Amino acid sequence: MIMNKIITISRQYGSGGREVGKKLAEHFEIPFYDNEIISSAAKESGFSEIAFQRAEEKATNSFLYSIAMGMSAYGNMDMGFSTMSVDDQLFLAETKVIRRFAQQGACIIVGRCADYILKDTPNVINLFILANIESRIKRAIEIYGLEKPKAEENILKFDKRRSNYYSFHTGKKWGDLTNYDLSIRSDLGGIEHTVETIIKYIQA
Amino acid sequence: MIMNKIITISRQYGSGGREVGKKLAEHFEIPFYDNEIISSAAKESGFSEIAFQRAEEKATNSFLYSIAMGMSAYGNMDMGFSTMSVDDQLFLAETKVIRRFAQQGACIIVGRCADYILKDTPNVINLFILANIESRIKRAIEIYGLEKPKAEENILKFDKRRSNYYSFHTGKKWGDLTNYDLSIRSDLGGIEHTVETIIKYIQA
Repeated sequence: MIMNKIITISRQYGSGGREVGKKLAEHFEIPFYDNEIISSAAKESGFSEIAFQRAEEKATNSFLYSIAMGMSAYGNMDMGFSTMSVDDQLFLAETKVIRRFAQQGACIIVGRCADYILKDTPNVINLFILANIESRIKRAIEIYGLEKPKAEENILKFDKRRSNYYSFHTGKKWGDLTNYDLSIRSDLGGIEHTVETIIKYIQA
Repeated sequence: MIMNKIITISRQYGSGGREVGKKLAEHFEIPFYDNEIISSAAKESGFSEIAFQRAEEKATNSFLYSIAMGMSAYGNMDMGFSTMSVDDQLFLAETKVIRRFAQQGACIIVGRCADYILKDTPNVINLFILANIESRIKRAIEIYGLEKPKAEENILKFDKRRSNYYSFHTGKKWGDLTNYDLSIRSDLGGIEHTVETIIKYIQA
């Protein structure tokens, strides 16, 4: 089946969103981009991969994140690259990479506000993968090998980070269903069934 | 196919959510409840159907709604029926009807916070139907026979009403995707395709 769509995936921590994306990429035989975005952006921008990871980690506290993002932005009137904050430069580097990936054709892109970055690009389908809390804890224990308290801590921490990162860069609310074409609970029928439902939906 | 699920449907105005619900009911050969909730609640409570409709209409302005809801509630300590506000009594009457419908077996229930009312009931699947603004305007013109300005006005008014009504009675946010198992944009593939995707999802 020919599939010319660019699929962005936003996901709760432990929902299996990344695995859903991998399986969709395998099914449609299209590229899957997750950490590849960071490595490409690092190569092109000259910033280290660690700088990109730190920018994401910082977003755990939205207030501190806002301050950190604003501190080095001297020139709001002159948005030349050199007067932008480091975080804005990092985000811009990722934006360029995501847009180029999308231009190359059908693909899966996980996270990093790709739904917002590609909002004016045709043939984009935005997915959000969620799951109930019990199955997310179970998954974090089984897949990431965490102890239960650490799994619970990560769920809170990563969701908060993703939410803050998203709202800071897009001005929109992460988890507002109007941002997505399909939001789907993966634990109701399992990962494989979720993938099949998405494939059915995409074949419109 | 045997289907033992209770399906609640929340929907944006003009998204076709009601039609999706009707088609699901036909497919699974199960009851479809929308205005039946009001007529049953009216019969059982002694309030008129108009009283129920007015309670929903009032929710357009959340501040006035809160005042109206609170005004006649004298006895928060003593939640006997007679000391509840009229609006709370109306909501309670609807709650009873929805719970009874759900006890009778598989069915489709549209609106009226049914996802929240049935949150502790097993075998409930909560759906949210959305659509992009252009297709909602088009639908309101075609299906409800409205002029364009009236269609646009209704979309704003009804969504606000549903949002206020929902958040007042549930304390949760209407349109927060974590309240639903599946949130789906109906205009991407059309109503029939949306129904097919939901059927696929439910067959987990």
